[in-house]
Amino acid sequence: MNIGERLLKGDKRACARLITMLENNEQEAIEILKRLYKFTGRAYVIGITGPPGSGKSTLTDKLTKELRKRGKKIGIIAIDPTSPFTGGAILGDRIRMSDLALDKGVFIRSMGTRGSLGGMSKATWGAAKVLDIYGVDYIFIETVGVGQSEVDIVKTADTVLMVMVPNLGDDIQAIKAGIMEIADIFAINKADLDGADKTQLEIEMNLDLNESRDYRPPVVKVSASKNENIDKLLDKIMEHRGYLEKTGELFRRRKRNTKLEIVKLVEEELMNLIMDKALEENLLDNLSEEVLLKSLDPYSARDKVLGLIKEWEG
Amino acid sequence: MNIGERLLKGDKRACARLITMLENNEQEAIEILKRLYKFTGRAYVIGITGPPGSGKSTLTDKLTKELRKRGKKIGIIAIDPTSPFTGGAILGDRIRMSDLALDKGVFIRSMGTRGSLGGMSKATWGAAKVLDIYGVDYIFIETVGVGQSEVDIVKTADTVLMVMVPNLGDDIQAIKAGIMEIADIFAINKADLDGADKTQLEIEMNLDLNESRDYRPPVVKVSASKNENIDKLLDKIMEHRGYLEKTGELFRRRKRNTKLEIVKLVEEELMNLIMDKALEENLLDNLSEEVLLKSLDPYSARDKVLGLIKEWEG
Repeated sequence: MNIGERLLKGDKRACARLITMLENNEQEAIEILKRLYKFTGRAYVIGITGPPGSGKSTLTDKLTKELRKRGKKIGIIAIDPTSPFTGGAILGDRIRMSDLALDKGVFIRSMGTRGSLGGMSKATWGAAKVLDIYGVDYIFIETVGVGQSEVDIVKTADTVLMVMVPNLGDDIQAIKAGIMEIADIFAINKADLDGADKTQLEIEMNLDLNESRDYRPPVVKVSASKNENIDKLLDKIMEHRGYLEKTGELFRRRKRNTKLEIVKLVEEELMNLIMDKALEENLLDNLSEEVLLKSLDPYSARDKVLGLIKEWEG
Repeated sequence: MNIGERLLKGDKRACARLITMLENNEQEAIEILKRLYKFTGRAYVIGITGPPGSGKSTLTDKLTKELRKRGKKIGIIAIDPTSPFTGGAILGDRIRMSDLALDKGVFIRSMGTRGSLGGMSKATWGAAKVLDIYGVDYIFIETVGVGQSEVDIVKTADTVLMVMVPNLGDDIQAIKAGIMEIADIFAINKADLDGADKTQLEIEMNLDLNESRDYRPPVVKVSASKNENIDKLLDKIMEHRGYLEKTGELFRRRKRNTKLEIVKLVEEELMNLIMDKALEENLLDNLSEEVLLKSLDPYSARDKVLGLIKEWEG
């Protein structure tokens, strides 16, 4: 059996191997994904984001255990921060940190960002498709960072869970505000800490400003480490899924996400085409030196690189 | 006098106006920047990043005041998180929060991310060039988020200052590790808190792993709110600048950054060209629907969009 067939049969090793091949941008993996694409669309994707220290990993683990009790098969994709220069993944041990690693119904994967936004979103997207074909019922996509690029990834989930925690200072409030609108459900973790009620109140007030939405995101107080209210949080996720399915919003959302995926793929391929050419001719190197010495401005340098397009057609 | 001439004479309003025009992607602003590009290169750029709650804004303000005492003119660019959907800036009041706003030798600007990484880095880069022409001696670029895109921006600075704070939990450690290598100087803020020594030790141990570098980033304990050790931190920034200038590393670093800038400009222009065309023909909309209904896979959809390139030449 080839790797695609093994994946379809639910072979965990084939799943891991194919994701690695996609990370390495191997053409064979892309061909497999193209061929098996028609088997996607069954898995439901939950994005989990929130500020550092809010306990996202622990909460993901607990939600996974709850779903396992309900007989579901789970995939977890943890997006790790990496050094923009070396490209090394930092949290490669996300897998080892979780006692779920031994559960046959759970597949956990850490994805490094490899120094490029396009690379990160493409790899995450590819891994989610592979897991979908592999046959999981739910996919968690969990971020460590809280920047624009992480938000861009998480917002392509079917349901976005925003994990908050009491008393994290002013910057946190700003970040919360910045990504408030992509959240479908808020979890206030470590809810036994002082300040949980205040955080809840702040979120509810913020939601009040947005009353025009049909759907109002619920705010659920939980304690991941004490395993409190996890089932309640999961019920809210299921309610949101039900709402999306009933209203046709799931189709619209997935269509928007598919559009974003195509745009990313186009962007990446274009850059590959241009950059291969520009690097080969030392063009970029020469242009950046000219710009730095100010015999050229950056916009004119850009136009010279764009001039390479003409040559493809020749 | 036109706006370009006024900028060259140090007119603050012209500076603000031109940055806004660049944010709105006005062709006139780009023409001005092209014409005045030869007047850039004098300002020294300091990137400031670090986890939420580490007090980056306060530290930037205090460093600015110290530099003002030394007779320098300062520009501050604060990168704000914005909603990926509405594109509204959140921290527009960064300016009002600072008592520096009334100082004629200080120019403060908040930049929203407007939902796209390319947009954020391009706007930041443009604003820095305008400030440079305007005549500031130092530019601070300060981020709120700590994701990949923020790191990508800050790493284009001449000196990167990483602000840490004691006791922020495990996620913080992961983030710190992820961007450890782009830091030229570490500041441990709120150094009077318990745990400051432990944080310093962790950073130093991490630096020990990287002994191969000629330059070892110093670790400075400060208290921004109490104004303690700010002068010492500034001296370390000046030492790093001296090191870069003496070794020729500044030229290499700026050349690398210029290359990244050109690549961003190319990427953006290409995407504009393609996407305008694709939107006009409803191509993206139709393709994403086909992909969602699985009559097409995303890679084949990509190739159809790329096919639009041929039409430019026709």
